[in-house]
Amino acid sequence: MRTYRLLISCPDASGIVASVSHFIASHGGWILEANHHSDPISGRFYMRNEIKADSLPFELDTFREHFQALAEDLSLDWTMTDSGAPHKVALLASKQAHCLSDLLYRWRSGDLNMDIPCVISNHDDLRSYVEWHDIPYYHVPVDKNDKEAAYQQMTDLLEEHCVDTVVLARYMQIIPPALCQTFQNRLINIHHSFLPSFVGARPYHQAYTRGVKLVGATCHYVTEELDAGPIIEQDVIRVGHNHLPDEMVRLGKDVEKTVLARGLRYHLEDRVIVDEGKTIILE
Amino acid sequence: MRTYRLLISCPDASGIVASVSHFIASHGGWILEANHHSDPISGRFYMRNEIKADSLPFELDTFREHFQALAEDLSLDWTMTDSGAPHKVALLASKQAHCLSDLLYRWRSGDLNMDIPCVISNHDDLRSYVEWHDIPYYHVPVDKNDKEAAYQQMTDLLEEHCVDTVVLARYMQIIPPALCQTFQNRLINIHHSFLPSFVGARPYHQAYTRGVKLVGATCHYVTEELDAGPIIEQDVIRVGHNHLPDEMVRLGKDVEKTVLARGLRYHLEDRVIVDEGKTIILE
Amino acid sequence: MRTYRLLISCPDASGIVASVSHFIASHGGWILEANHHSDPISGRFYMRNEIKADSLPFELDTFREHFQALAEDLSLDWTMTDSGAPHKVALLASKQAHCLSDLLYRWRSGDLNMDIPCVISNHDDLRSYVEWHDIPYYHVPVDKNDKEAAYQQMTDLLEEHCVDTVVLARYMQIIPPALCQTFQNRLINIHHSFLPSFVGARPYHQAYTRGVKLVGATCHYVTEELDAGPIIEQDVIRVGHNHLPDEMVRLGKDVEKTVLARGLRYHLEDRVIVDEGKTIILE
Amino acid sequence: MRTYRLLISCPDASGIVASVSHFIASHGGWILEANHHSDPISGRFYMRNEIKADSLPFELDTFREHFQALAEDLSLDWTMTDSGAPHKVALLASKQAHCLSDLLYRWRSGDLNMDIPCVISNHDDLRSYVEWHDIPYYHVPVDKNDKEAAYQQMTDLLEEHCVDTVVLARYMQIIPPALCQTFQNRLINIHHSFLPSFVGARPYHQAYTRGVKLVGATCHYVTEELDAGPIIEQDVIRVGHNHLPDEMVRLGKDVEKTVLARGLRYHLEDRVIVDEGKTIILE
Repeated sequence: MRTYRLLISCPDASGIVASVSHFIASHGGWILEANHHSDPISGRFYMRNEIKADSLPFELDTFREHFQALAEDLSLDWTMTDSGAPHKVALLASKQAHCLSDLLYRWRSGDLNMDIPCVISNHDDLRSYVEWHDIPYYHVPVDKNDKEAAYQQMTDLLEEHCVDTVVLARYMQIIPPALCQTFQNRLINIHHSFLPSFVGARPYHQAYTRGVKLVGATCHYVTEELDAGPIIEQDVIRVGHNHLPDEMVRLGKDVEKTVLARGLRYHLEDRVIVDEGKTIILE
Repeated sequence: MRTYRLLISCPDASGIVASVSHFIASHGGWILEANHHSDPISGRFYMRNEIKADSLPFELDTFREHFQALAEDLSLDWTMTDSGAPHKVALLASKQAHCLSDLLYRWRSGDLNMDIPCVISNHDDLRSYVEWHDIPYYHVPVDKNDKEAAYQQMTDLLEEHCVDTVVLARYMQIIPPALCQTFQNRLINIHHSFLPSFVGARPYHQAYTRGVKLVGATCHYVTEELDAGPIIEQDVIRVGHNHLPDEMVRLGKDVEKTVLARGLRYHLEDRVIVDEGKTIILE
Repeated sequence: MRTYRLLISCPDASGIVASVSHFIASHGGWILEANHHSDPISGRFYMRNEIKADSLPFELDTFREHFQALAEDLSLDWTMTDSGAPHKVALLASKQAHCLSDLLYRWRSGDLNMDIPCVISNHDDLRSYVEWHDIPYYHVPVDKNDKEAAYQQMTDLLEEHCVDTVVLARYMQIIPPALCQTFQNRLINIHHSFLPSFVGARPYHQAYTRGVKLVGATCHYVTEELDAGPIIEQDVIRVGHNHLPDEMVRLGKDVEKTVLARGLRYHLEDRVIVDEGKTIILE
Repeated sequence: MRTYRLLISCPDASGIVASVSHFIASHGGWILEANHHSDPISGRFYMRNEIKADSLPFELDTFREHFQALAEDLSLDWTMTDSGAPHKVALLASKQAHCLSDLLYRWRSGDLNMDIPCVISNHDDLRSYVEWHDIPYYHVPVDKNDKEAAYQQMTDLLEEHCVDTVVLARYMQIIPPALCQTFQNRLINIHHSFLPSFVGARPYHQAYTRGVKLVGATCHYVTEELDAGPIIEQDVIRVGHNHLPDEMVRLGKDVEKTVLARGLRYHLEDRVIVDEGKTIILE
C-alpha cells in the first residue's frame, strides 16, 4: 500500500498533535501509524505519521504547499516522503560478502523497499555475484598514496546514479569528509563492535584481549569523526573464553548483517530523526 | 510527577486523534506521552495519552464530565486514571518467595507505584518476611476437599482491603471462576513456561522431557480457562542438555520474577488494553 | 586444520575418560577440544574429543581398528569422523529463499564446511540462483494426488549424489516415512515456531491469534511424527500487538535462517548425539 | 550432594587429561562434571573436575597429599575445594538495595551456597533489613578527607569474620590497593555498564548522551585499575530514545542484579580461573 510519511521535529508545546492531526483529518487523510516522542531534557517534540496515499485528495506536492503555513506557525522541521518513490541506495563493499549478500537477498525478495542503482567496491571479487542481480558493479581501487582519484570517481558515480543513501556494507575504507557532509544522515555504516567499545581497527581482537563475554555490532550514520556518528541500531551475541578472535569474527557476522538490515529498514521507512548526535527511531 | 492517563479503544476512523488531542489542548493539557495503535484486522483503534495533572484547570471528575460528550460521539470505550491514586494490589503467594521478594523490593524502593494492602498465602512460611514490611499477612489454608471456605475468606479479604488488582506471585492454586470474573483483566498470574507451550503442572519437567533449548515465563491475565488468558509479557532463557529439571527451575526463577515485574508495571501504569483475548501494550 | 572427531555414548561408569584419554595419549594424539556430559537421570555418559589428525601415527581406519577392543570393553556406542571428508548435504527448498540463500552464502564463503551435491525443489523458481553457484538443481514437482513418483525421484537423487545429510530449508512438504528412516538423525528441518508451540501449518498466524510476545524457530531432526523430532537449536525474537502475521513472518525469517545455520553447524561438526528423543550438543 | 572441585591450569601438553583422570579413577573417584579448555594462543590448558566426595576413600587433605607428586610432574597450578565448606562472603553495599536484596534472597532460599558472615555499608540505611536475616551489619562511614580509618576498620572486620570473598553489591566507593591485593581474584564488583564502555562514574548518563541502544552490566574481579579487572559475566538490555537516564538506571538494575548473581555463582562453585587478565569459566 502506498503511503506518505510525515516526519516532524520541533520545540515541544501544547497543541502540536491537535493541529497536525486536525490538518490531516480535515483533508480526509487516513493515518495508518502514528508515533510521538517528547524529550523533556532537550525540550523537543518528534512525530511521524504514516498516511494512506489514496486517502488524500491531492498529490505530495500539493500537500506540501498546504502544510507549509501550519509548519511555519508551529516552527516545524519537517519532511514528507512517498513510499512509492523508494530510496536509491548505493552499496559499498570490500571483499567480505556477508552484509552485501544479505542486503541483496532482502532487496530481491522485496523485504527491503529500495532501489540499488549500483554497487561500488575497492576489489573486483564480488562482481559476478552482484551482476547476477543485474546491478551495475564498479571496481574503484583505492590507491593508498593517492586516494583523491578514487574519491572523485566514487563521488561521480553516486551523483550519476542519483543515489540518496550510501550503505557501507563492511567497506573497510575511510570515507572522505566531503562525502560525509554531502550524505549527512544518509551515509550508513555497520561497525563490528558494540560502540563505544572498541572503536577503530580489529575490534574482535580488542574484544578477545579484554575478555568480554558479549560482542556486538553497531549500525550508525557516518560523521567525520571515526565511529562516533549517531547510532541507529545495535545488538550483541554471547562469546566465551573458548572463542578465539577468528571465531568471534564468524559469530559477529550474523549480528552485523542483522543489525545493518534493521538499521537500514528504519532509514528506508523514514523512521529516523537525528538530533544532537542521537537518533530518535519512530516505530 | 502526577499524571492522568486516558486510555481509549474504539472503531478505527479518520479524525479520532484530531478530536481527542484538540479536546486536551483546548483545556491546556500537556501531553507527556502519547501512543496510538490501529489494528487493520480488527478495525479497532487504541490510544493512550499521559497528561500532566497540573496542566489541566480541573480535577479528574470534571475532565470526565467534559469528555463524556466527545466520547459518545466517537463511540469510545475509555478510562481516565490518576497516577496519584495508585492501584491497590493484593499479592498471593505460596511457599516460594522469589517473585514475592522481588515485588516487595520494587515496592519498598518506589520502583513500582502501587499500594499493597495485604499478602495472602495458603502457607504461613512467609509471614515474618512480609510483616517486616508492615504489610498484613493472611494465612488462608486451602482444604483440598472443601475449597469454598478458603475462597470465601479470600474474597472477603480482597473486598475488605478495597483491592483492585490481584497478583498471583507463584500462588500455585486454582482461582475460582467467581474471582476470575470479579477481577477480569485485573488478576495477573506468572506461569513458569513460555505459553502456549507446557500448559498446566510441572512445566520445567515437561520442558526437560521435550528437550527444548529455551525455557520461559509468561505473565498473563487469568481467565477461567487454565493458562489461556491474555498474555501481557513473556521472556525466555537458554538451557541445554546439561540442565536437569531442578536447574531449569532455578534458572527459570529469574525469568519469572522479571517477566512478572514487567507485566505488572504495564498494568500499574495503565498501559494495557485487552481486546479479543489479546493485550495491546501502549508504551 | 584437519581433525578427527570421536563421539562416544555409553552407560556412565568410573574410569571411562581415563581409559579413552589414555588410549589417545598413548598414540600421541593431541586433543584440541574435549567435552563430556553425564546425565544422572538416564545414567548415560557422552563424550566428544577433537584430535589433531597429524598428531596420530596412522589413518582413521587404523585408529578404528585399534580402538575397537577398548570400545567393546566399555560398551561404547561410538563414531569417528574426519573433518577432511565433509558431509554431503542436499538442500531441499520450495519458493522462499531466505534459508537457502543464507546457507549458500555460508557454504561459498567457507563458513560451513560441507559439500552440496544438489538442491532439490518442488518449484523451479530458484534454479538460476542455485545454478550460479555451479550446484545441480533438480525440479521435482509433488503431485498432490500421487506423491509416490516424486518421493521415488527424490530418493534416487539422494542416493545418486551419495548424500548423507538432508536439510529442509523451508521445503514445506511432508517427508515420507521411508526417507525419515533412511536419514534418521541426518534429516534436518527448520520449523517456524518455538516448538512445542504451534505445531503444524501457519505457526505465525497461530502466534498472532494467541497474542504471544515472542516468536521463534526450531531446528530439529525429522521423525515420522510431525514437528516432534529431537530439537537441535531454537531461538526467539520479540513481537508485539503491532505486528500483523505478515510482519511476524518477516521477522521470523531472520530467526529461522540463523537457527538453521547454528543447528546445521553442530551437525556438520559432529557435535550432536541423539538419545531418548533429545539432543546432547557437545560444544 | 557434597563434591570436591579440582581446578587445574598448566602448559598444554599431550596426556594431561589421561594422567589426571587416571589418578581420580584409580582411587574410585566418580566424576560428576568435567570441563576442559585448551587455549592455542596462550598455550595453556585448563580443567575442572567435580568429584562425588563420598566416592573417594579419603578426605580432601589426603587427596591433596597424594595428588601433589603428579601435580609437580605435570607443572600444574591447582586447587581442590570442598562444596561442604562454602565460601565466606562479605557483602558491601551503600544505599541502593537491589543487588543486596537479590543476593540475600538467593542466600536464604539456598539458591547460592555461601556463608555471609557480615554486611558492611558506608550508610546505616539497610541495617534493619539485613538484621532481619540475622546477619551482622556494620556501618563504616568513609570520611572523604581521611579514608584510612574506614579502610582499617573494614580490613579488620573482614579478617575477624574470616572472609574469603568480598562482593561489592553496588558499594560505590573506591577499594584501597591493599585490599585489592589481599583479595586478588576474590573481590567481585558489579559495574553498571557493558565494559569497556563507560568506565567510571554515572555510566547510564554517559550511555544516554552517546545514544546507545543497549545498556548493560559487568561483573568483574577488582584490580587496582578502575573497572579494568577480569570480566566474569556481562549482559545487556534494550533501551531507546524514550529512556531518560533515570529510566536506564531502573532498567539497568535488573541486569545488574542478575549478572552479579550469575558471576558470583561461578565464583562460589569454583568455576573461574583467571589468566592474563581474563577469566576462563569452566561450566
